[in-house]
This record gives sequence, structure tokens and C-alpha cells, in this order.
Amino acid sequence: MANKSDETRREIGVGLLGLGTVGSEVARVLIEDAEELAARVGAKLVLRGVAVRNLDAARGASAGLVDPALLTTEAAELVERDDVDVVVELIGGINPAKELIRQALRAGKSVVSANKALFAAHSAKLFEAAQKAKVDLFFEAAVAGAIPVIRPLRQSLAGDRVTTVAGIVNGTTNFILSAMDSEGDDYADVLRQAQELGYAEADPTADVGGHDAAAKTAILASIAFHTRVTASDVHVEGITEITAADVESAKQLGYTIKLLSLSERVVGEDGKERVSARVYPALVPRSHPLASVNGAYNAVVVEAVNAGRLMFYGQGAGGAPTASSVAGDLVAAARNVVLGRAVASESTYAKLPIASIGDVAARYFVRMRVDDRPGVLSSVASVFAKRDVSIATVLQKGVIEGGAEIIIITHSALGSALAETVREVEDLPAVVEVESVLRLEFEND
Amino acid sequence: MANKSDETRREIGVGLLGLGTVGSEVARVLIEDAEELAARVGAKLVLRGVAVRNLDAARGASAGLVDPALLTTEAAELVERDDVDVVVELIGGINPAKELIRQALRAGKSVVSANKALFAAHSAKLFEAAQKAKVDLFFEAAVAGAIPVIRPLRQSLAGDRVTTVAGIVNGTTNFILSAMDSEGDDYADVLRQAQELGYAEADPTADVGGHDAAAKTAILASIAFHTRVTASDVHVEGITEITAADVESAKQLGYTIKLLSLSERVVGEDGKERVSARVYPALVPRSHPLASVNGAYNAVVVEAVNAGRLMFYGQGAGGAPTASSVAGDLVAAARNVVLGRAVASESTYAKLPIASIGDVAARYFVRMRVDDRPGVLSSVASVFAKRDVSIATVLQKGVIEGGAEIIIITHSALGSALAETVREVEDLPAVVEVESVLRLEFEND
Repeated sequence: MANKSDETRREIGVGLLGLGTVGSEVARVLIEDAEELAARVGAKLVLRGVAVRNLDAARGASAGLVDPALLTTEAAELVERDDVDVVVELIGGINPAKELIRQALRAGKSVVSANKALFAAHSAKLFEAAQKAKVDLFFEAAVAGAIPVIRPLRQSLAGDRVTTVAGIVNGTTNFILSAMDSEGDDYADVLRQAQELGYAEADPTADVGGHDAAAKTAILASIAFHTRVTASDVHVEGITEITAADVESAKQLGYTIKLLSLSERVVGEDGKERVSARVYPALVPRSHPLASVNGAYNAVVVEAVNAGRLMFYGQGAGGAPTASSVAGDLVAAARNVVLGRAVASESTYAKLPIASIGDVAARYFVRMRVDDRPGVLSSVASVFAKRDVSIATVLQKGVIEGGAEIIIITHSALGSALAETVREVEDLPAVVEVESVLRLEFEND
Repeated sequence: MANKSDETRREIGVGLLGLGTVGSEVARVLIEDAEELAARVGAKLVLRGVAVRNLDAARGASAGLVDPALLTTEAAELVERDDVDVVVELIGGINPAKELIRQALRAGKSVVSANKALFAAHSAKLFEAAQKAKVDLFFEAAVAGAIPVIRPLRQSLAGDRVTTVAGIVNGTTNFILSAMDSEGDDYADVLRQAQELGYAEADPTADVGGHDAAAKTAILASIAFHTRVTASDVHVEGITEITAADVESAKQLGYTIKLLSLSERVVGEDGKERVSARVYPALVPRSHPLASVNGAYNAVVVEAVNAGRLMFYGQGAGGAPTASSVAGDLVAAARNVVLGRAVASESTYAKLPIASIGDVAARYFVRMRVDDRPGVLSSVASVFAKRDVSIATVLQKGVIEGGAEIIIITHSALGSALAETVREVEDLPAVVEVESVLRLEFEND
């Protein structure tokens, strides 16, 4: 199975699991670009079957695109068929995708997947199975849709040392935050718009809660730092608490708020390297390349010791863009079948421990409502001073609902120290409420 | 030679040709990051020898970095040594690099090179030799320094159809044009500054004449369109004629001037697809992502049918960034030696013809000095009308040295029609001089 090299081979069989938005586009590419793909692979790519949940629904949706005779509900049979060489998994979610992929790998099929949830949780077992079967397991489309970022990290930067991966990897939240920034609207209104336009799901939790971004962050961190990082290792905060007032204040100070995916090498007090992986909304200086990534676009900035700063930018979701990534992986896997080889698998030799969020230093933006009377700022400032959280900028705003607003931007502080400071500030009699605590990224002290 | 697979293999021998800015950085990476690279390759990378022109000079320059015993002037011997598996060519230029690479390939060594001039002229023969010997031939560093762009084009986009590759691929000219834009200085003054800062060579012809960009364009076009394109197929115009007045006028109209590398699929009047590859300074709308690529940075924008617009951004030159790319290729080649395989070679199955520059339509910016008297604009406009070159915008400026200035921005026109129009306009008695003819890119009619 590992060695299918055959100079006379003229066809590579493809088994497709799932015929949703991305699956249909992949089927279209396979059919419409058949000639071009054959020239690139060195053999014809032939769709052997498409596994779907509901035959009738699939027949209707794919009419005129996929030969109805190719549709099947028997996914487990399809992945083991003798005439299938590469399985493309586009079902999503953990089950039954995980078992189907393992079964395909065991049967000696190479696998291409766009399944971020699965790879953020179970990549270890899957790579083990792929390595054992000497087949390929590719998942470029699992992170940042059409943007090639997995392959550059795994291959192009293989001779360098990545220090940071920072990205905007969720289109829904970026659409919402971009609209809040440009229109000044409130979160709830913009979410509704996004839902009407199809940029947000009816239940938007996975996106706005940061969980989708966390899964992608786990995958990026694993590859960048040669360490196994799962979604549960990623510190996650969503954007549901961001208000129009936060966006407005950030704007006045020269920042825009973005939901960031951050993975970094950090050195702890013990001198040991750790990986910090986190997702949260943060203030980003308007001059930073990520600040101008708007709407449904994604971008990933990679910093490496020798390469310096690299940025990869493009469409992070959608049928056709994601299908482009899937088809790239499919061509690579098919070429390898033709040539009788598979590429090196996941490398996690570094095995760095995960840093706790409390140990990661950041600059903070703290916005609070206070009584409008003398001495308030001084009492707030003394709490910050007591905890050694150094203040960089203070902005005091006029009368708001009978009180005033104070915005403090700190120098770099540990998450634990900042949390204690905020708790104590909230106990001050003159402080009505601490309304927002957000981090500020990409700006040195 | 092709099959060096050996589970017990513990060392991969590297022969380095050249110890200049990039060569020294590659040597440093091999020595300082030895442990990390070994983990990624699955075997130790060992520097077997470094070929230099002058032993004494090299000993001085590399003191404390490279063991003097490794230095040799016998490059031809080094590339054939039994204990060398991968040859890294960083000499640059056509000769003797071409012969040394061919010799290495014939001897069964994989080759990594950063040589844009060579790959823009002779990639065909080299790929043939690599394919015959079943070894790898990688050259990511030949285009855009640290930015992974060759590998994404060859692999990630292998399942898509690229329509355009547009880039800023020369740091020297981008530094000069960025400075002219931000300071308003004249070309000659900025060139002098760039030379003092080390951003431009004493003889800057290769950069400012567009030839360096043309070589990179040939490589990008070849890969993007699966067609053999050499530097001599690329239409080239440099930046030496760009004046402060051009930059100023462009600015007033919302544009910035950039030296662009453009490769496109174009469809001729015969309905046949061609490749158009060109390098020239052009007006770029300030809102386009390439407009904000400043200083010595490079960026490449790729448009593909399914992926849509992708952008790759980073440092395009310099020792460490270029070494990062070279080291990435070296790790890939070394992994393949360990696993006993090589990757697919260049694909030029499409064999599209090259479009002539006269057949490529573009919008134009034409700046001219005229007598300040009634009727001039009308006589100029009638010449454009006669040639069917449609005018989009006219800007008439106040009195300049006893005359006036007219700037015309056209709708899309063929290069040949525009050239005839300009010749006829220059013959008008009221026209003192047509001072600039520049193209305008990334803005539809």
C-alpha cells in the first residue's frame, strides 16, 4: 500500500466525504479542471464516490454537478474501496470524521481534510496512523481557508526558528469588529447584520466565543513550535463583551480592536521555554499590518529569527477559497501516490510545556466608570502602583451619566497582577464599575 | 544515487558554494541551529566544505564561524565529493554557477540555490538534469528573499488556476520610490542616499533598470503558468526616468508609484491564452495592498480563480532573511535524502506563448508641458480621440515656467495605440514636451 509507484498508472481515485459548501466546490474543481489537474499530477484524478448523509437532499443539491450514481451513504465502505487512493474528508466535527479518517489511513489511503476541530484535538493519533501506513495526511484548509500557512510553516520555515505566530483567523468576528470600528455600531446590532448577510451562523457561539479561532491556534502553535498543542491548551476569550464605547476609545487612542490568535515562545522565570497559545480581542495599533485586515479576510503574521516578519493574507473561509486549499493538498497527495512516496509527518520533537495565561505579560487597556469628584484618579493610580502595575497613559473623559470615565493603558504586566489590581480597583468607593479590561498587542513599552 | 534511503543514516553532508552575505548566514544557521535542524531532518546536517574564490580573504571574513580547514578553492571537487549529499549554490551569476550545479546534479547531489539570474535563463536544462538524476532542485530564495512564494505557487495552489501574479520584488527600487513618495525628493538625491545606506549598489543598473525584477518575474511567471518564461521574455522598464513631479502628481490623484512585477494570463484577439510578463513603474491606488509595502520590503499578490486574492509579504533581501529561505530548502532536500526520494520537478506542460507588450492593454498616465494658451487641451484631446484612446481624467495645472501642465489619465488602451498617440501629441505645436508616460494598475475602467 505504501508503495504504489507505477509508471503506467493513469488514474488516481478520490473518495469525497461530505458534499456541503466546500465539498461541492471540490467536486466542481475535480470535474471542471480535470485536464489541468491531470497534467499537474501526472495521472487523471477520478471521483469514485461521494459520501453524504441524505441521498435525496444530495441529489437535489448536486444536480448537474455530480453523477447521482456516485452518491452513497456508506462512508465507511467508500474509504476502503480498492479503487480509492486519496480520501478527502469535508464532513467536519469530531465524529464520525475521526473514525473514517483512521479507517482510511489504515487501509493505506492518503487523506486530505479541512477539519480544524479534529486536528486541534486529535492530530497525534492521526499522524501516528498516517506514519505507520506511510501515506500522506494534509490539512492546509483547516486554518485560514485559502491562505497557504501550514505548508510555509512546515516547509519553508523548516530552517528557521519561529518566535511568534499572530493572526486574524476567524472571518465572522473580524467582520463584526471591522463593522463596529467603521460604523460605530453596537455588538448586538452588527451581529444581527452579520447573520442576515450570512457571515454569522444562527448560533454564533463557536465564532464569537473564540472557539473556532482557538482550534486554529492549536494547529498553528503545534506546527510552529514542533510541540503538541490542543484546543484545550489555548486560553480563549471571545468578543461578546466588546462595546461600542471600547471601540470608540480604542479609536481615539490610535488602535483598532481585533480578535487575535497568538502563539509565542515565552521564557518563564525558571529560564525554560514554553509555548503560550491564546485567543482574545486586543487593541492593535492602526499602523500594524493586521489592523488593516478587514471584513471576512484572514491574515497570519509569522515572526522568525532569520526571516523576520512575514505576512500571509487572503480569504479565510467560503466554498471556493477553501476548495482551493483542499485541491492543492489533493494534488500533492496524488502526486505522491503516483511517485510512490509520502511526506514526513508531524514533528513534535520539541515538546515544550504550555505557559499559563497568568504568567504571560501584556499591556492592558482598562476602562472604568467613576464618580466625578476630586481624588478619584489618585486613589485608582495608587492601587495600580501598589501591585507594581505601571501606568503608561491615562485618559479622563468628561461627565458620563453623572460620573466620569477613566481609561488607563498600562506598561507590560503579568495577567495575575492585573487581575488582582482590577479586583481591588472595583472595591474603591469612588469606582462605579470597571467596564472593560482588554490587552494591547504589538506595541512595546 | 537516487535511492539513498537508509534507516541508520545519521549525517547529511552539505557542500556550500560561496561565503558572501548569504553564504555566511547559511553557515551560521548550520552551526548554531545544528541540534534543531537535526531534529527536523531526522539526521545531522554536516558542513563538509565551503568553496570560496580567495582563501585568505575567506579565512579573515569567516574567522570564528567556519573551521578554516573546510575552506577550499576547488568548487568542482567539492560538488562531487562522496560525503556531500546536498550542494548549496550561493555564488550568483551564470558562470561558473551553472556548470557547478549541473555537475552536482549529475553526481546525484540535490541542489539548493538562490540564483535568480541563472534560474531566469537556464532553468529548463537544470530541471532536466535534476529529473534525470532523481534529485531535488530548490530555489525559493531566488525570488523575494525570506518570503515563501515559490513553494505556495508550486504546491499550495496546485489545485487552482492562477490568473495574476503582481509583486514588488526589488528592495532597492522600492526603497527609492518610497523615499521619493514620502520626502518629495528627486530620483538622483534619493539614489545617493540609498547608496550611502547600503540599499543600492555603487553601480545600481541591475536594480534601477528593472533587470533584477525581470529575472524574478520570469521565475514567477514560469511557475504560476506552467510555461517556460525567461528573463528575455519579460518587458522591462526601469525607474530612472521617474521625477519628483511624477510622484507629486500621482500623489495628488490618490496613487503612489511602484516598480511592479506583473505576470498575467491574457487572451489575445485570436481567443488564445498567452502569458504576459512585464516590469515597469506604475501608478498604484493608495488603497491597494501593494501601495503600503514600503522601504526594502517585498510583497507578492497572487490572484487565483478559487482562492481569490492572496498576499505574501516580508523581507525580500539581506543575509539572514535569504538564509532562512535557503535553510528551508536545505531541510526539505535533506529530509528527502533521508527518506530516499525527490519531489516532482518543474512543470511546463501548458507551454503558453508570450504576449507582446504592444498587445497588452493598460490605463495610462500622460504628463505633458504645454503652452498656456486657449485651445491646447482641445487639440491634445482630439489626438487621443483619433486613436480611440479614451480619456478618463484630465488635470490642468497652473503656470509652470511660462507654460502649463496637463495630466491625462486614459481608460484602458493598447500599448501600441498609446505610443502612436504620444508621438502625435509631441508633434503638436502647442505641446512643449510629453514628460512622462506611466501605466496605472489595479484600477478598473
